[in-house]
Amino acid sequence: MRTSDLRPIFVDAGVVRIIDQTRLPSELVLRSLASVDEAAEAIRSMRVRGAPLIGVTAAFGMALAMRSDPSDEAVDAASSLLLATRPTGVNLRTVITGLRAELGNLAPAGRHAHAAAVAERLREEDVAINRAIGEHGLVLLRELAGRSRRPGGRVEILTHCNAGALATAGLGTATAPIYRAAEAGIDLHVWVDETRPRNQGSALTAWELGRAGIPHTVVVDNAGGHLMQRGLVDVCVVGTDRTLASGDVCNKIGTYLKALAADDNGLPFYVALPGPSIDWETTDPAAIPIEERDGREVAELGGTRLVPPGTPTANFGFDVTPARLVTGLITERGVCAASADGLRGLYPEGSASAGRTTGR
Amino acid sequence: MRTSDLRPIFVDAGVVRIIDQTRLPSELVLRSLASVDEAAEAIRSMRVRGAPLIGVTAAFGMALAMRSDPSDEAVDAASSLLLATRPTGVNLRTVITGLRAELGNLAPAGRHAHAAAVAERLREEDVAINRAIGEHGLVLLRELAGRSRRPGGRVEILTHCNAGALATAGLGTATAPIYRAAEAGIDLHVWVDETRPRNQGSALTAWELGRAGIPHTVVVDNAGGHLMQRGLVDVCVVGTDRTLASGDVCNKIGTYLKALAADDNGLPFYVALPGPSIDWETTDPAAIPIEERDGREVAELGGTRLVPPGTPTANFGFDVTPARLVTGLITERGVCAASADGLRGLYPEGSASAGRTTGR
Repeated sequence: MRTSDLRPIFVDAGVVRIIDQTRLPSELVLRSLASVDEAAEAIRSMRVRGAPLIGVTAAFGMALAMRSDPSDEAVDAASSLLLATRPTGVNLRTVITGLRAELGNLAPAGRHAHAAAVAERLREEDVAINRAIGEHGLVLLRELAGRSRRPGGRVEILTHCNAGALATAGLGTATAPIYRAAEAGIDLHVWVDETRPRNQGSALTAWELGRAGIPHTVVVDNAGGHLMQRGLVDVCVVGTDRTLASGDVCNKIGTYLKALAADDNGLPFYVALPGPSIDWETTDPAAIPIEERDGREVAELGGTRLVPPGTPTANFGFDVTPARLVTGLITERGVCAASADGLRGLYPEGSASAGRTTGR
Repeated sequence: MRTSDLRPIFVDAGVVRIIDQTRLPSELVLRSLASVDEAAEAIRSMRVRGAPLIGVTAAFGMALAMRSDPSDEAVDAASSLLLATRPTGVNLRTVITGLRAELGNLAPAGRHAHAAAVAERLREEDVAINRAIGEHGLVLLRELAGRSRRPGGRVEILTHCNAGALATAGLGTATAPIYRAAEAGIDLHVWVDETRPRNQGSALTAWELGRAGIPHTVVVDNAGGHLMQRGLVDVCVVGTDRTLASGDVCNKIGTYLKALAADDNGLPFYVALPGPSIDWETTDPAAIPIEERDGREVAELGGTRLVPPGTPTANFGFDVTPARLVTGLITERGVCAASADGLRGLYPEGSASAGRTTGR
């Protein structure tokens, strides 16, 4: 297991550095972020991605902004710039609206130090959250292994997109239970959805699982239903970019289809959920802003044109899986039902906070 | 409407010619088939694809075999070669097992003429089947247009893979109602699933719809559930490679996921079904041989490597959509329920034929 040394963002001799995830899987390239503009660009172009990592990167971006100009105007400009990068994940919004309020209460001279400290604290918190999600998820996978009728008690897991170490500051969300289970000697194999159009599964999840020595197989997004029908999957585990207080889960486009298939085949469908990705304020799933990205991500791949010239494309980044299709939420505080009651039980302070931190 | 001039297979001055569909959408390349080996290669490598077109091409392949050697041994060898090209679609099996039996009853001198005549008849029959499917499907789309609350009574259709003119000898199966509706002045728009890993949607369906002037938008396979949740789809129409007498439908991998989403959103899900694609003999969907193709189709695209070196991939070509998720079957004889009763009503001779023509 070599996963714990994967650091998609870190500070090295005062310089914020990231793994440029747009270069994977072909090469591992580190990149420095020297300004808030570079941080925003890195988020927008998905050099860093994954709701938790976006939140952490945005905080570092805010620190970079304060280093060069700690004025009120700079606080506002940096906040607006960062908030506009990606609309769907909730961590970014929570982090930046929180930081903006805090910085506004500080004298400019103290702003850089505060933002830098918050960024580092968020990074460390994310590592701890991942670790705790891993422990709670490990219990579930251990149970499945105990009931497995496969050779060696193997557990077959399907995941979508990358809710891995590359999406967080630590072990990942959906992958944390997988890494912990592998470490604990549980025999497992992961079906990795390619995750078109950005291919986070084939490019990133496959890369980090391979690096950690976790057995896995990449399939196209179309395949998951068939795998479940043929008894080749025991459990689905995915991440989330925004979970509503109702338990409805917004995650990478296509997640909903896998949840439907799990439900149709009587298979458990878990969402690994860090507390900071809960949106306590939005109640209507249809009100979640679904990012629409450049259609070229659908039309072209690595220089190959996939559609005839002039063909219209649409590129929705996320969909919403209704709570009724989710078996449970694996959080850093334990596993709960995907429901308002389930979430309130683990986060009693959460619903109380609704309305306090909204930036909209 | 320029679709009727699309001929993915035709005979020109005694030479069998095909559109090489592996070259689309970038270029329209015709290719001659000079031998049964070339016909088999064209099917295997998907230069021609789509269950009906595979059946017709295989018949032409048999004629080519008989032209060079009409011996009993050549009949057997050509049959085996062609049957081994693609396992899932049923048309190929029906055509070749039928032809093999008929040729065995003829003197060698008459075999080439017979096979050539059968091939041409199958081609013409397929054109007529497509036309009839188009008429019956047009009635359904007209009803949907009448109930549409969209501007202009527009109907939003989602389709998966290519069950188009390029998959048949005529107007296509799933596309025939679309072409007829467009011709009849019904306002429509088609969401085209990319259809990984071979991208028949983005490469072929988009190409032929664009050529015919039918409004369409290409989306990744992950998007369909979201489109349905957000009210952007009125009906799904897909083709089939093999429909069981029970009404269960085997079609391109990923079809099942779209059927689940249609069901979950209360949307009609139709399968356009030519009679020759009904398998009257197999009763257990799990007994359908699901083609597993080369993993490189998942790992690479147009020279770009999509997964890290050494990453295992799996590449299942088809899945089975249970009859309970299918609103209706659009056949050349009318629309029926996806059930044994529904199919028996339209094809009373069908169940009687079960067991007669099996080649297994």
